[in-house]
Amino acid sequence: MRRFALVTLICLATAPLYAQDKATIQKLNEAFSEAFNKGDFAALADLYTQDATLMPPQADFVRGRDDIQKFWQAASDHVGDLRLTTLDVEPFGSDTAREIGTFTLKPKGQQEEVAGKYVVIWQRVGGDWKLATDIWNTNK
Amino acid sequence: MRRFALVTLICLATAPLYAQDKATIQKLNEAFSEAFNKGDFAALADLYTQDATLMPPQADFVRGRDDIQKFWQAASDHVGDLRLTTLDVEPFGSDTAREIGTFTLKPKGQQEEVAGKYVVIWQRVGGDWKLATDIWNTNK
Repeated sequence: MRRFALVTLICLATAPLYAQDKATIQKLNEAFSEAFNKGDFAALADLYTQDATLMPPQADFVRGRDDIQKFWQAASDHVGDLRLTTLDVEPFGSDTAREIGTFTLKPKGQQEEVAGKYVVIWQRVGGDWKLATDIWNTNK
Repeated sequence: MRRFALVTLICLATAPLYAQDKATIQKLNEAFSEAFNKGDFAALADLYTQDATLMPPQADFVRGRDDIQKFWQAASDHVGDLRLTTLDVEPFGSDTAREIGTFTLKPKGQQEEVAGKYVVIWQRVGGDWKLATDIWNTNK
């Protein structure tokens, strides 16, 4: 029984990124919304790859970690209370995954939440998963 | 020289999907906009995988080829003159690729074009590349 547990543990530790990924990605999303909601934009930008592509609605492409940090900092003047929910994570090989998720946020000075959906391409950089492509839109 | 050309040809024919992909994808996008602009929604839907996910702005998720066909048919009442431009295609293994592109379209009864950007996850189904995930938003 102990040997079986050990083998299972080794398999889990060396498995690339299948069933466990959704939990990994959801945890990173919690770090994302936490950083945004408390205004730590350096920590938020650090969740992206160095040359990530952000594709926000009502705006042009935002490329690279520095401009992504500025984008989110500016966005925080208008919206808060961001929440992210991972719906589906599909791994492509061991270093890339496509996430589909939903979000809610609150425009400042409004009662009503805004809901939307997003696609993120995650890439493994060293030991960490980072957002490489990030696009979203609102539902209405 | 002829032998070199032959070897090159064989390599190109068996290479999975690198440099040549952007051209492949751009060609499929031309088929996409052509089908949309002439109102052939069955052909348009057939460019998607059977269980594709569409994520339009100002709407909820649209799942599966049948509902995707209905979505584009309904959209054509409001917009036309769709043009798609592939900016970047990144292959993930031999059966998946992530495309980033831009589009323009014309709302019916308006002079001014609307411009936007999109992410498509393409998947190889048999010998064909199909849209599996499709999300976009407008720039302003």
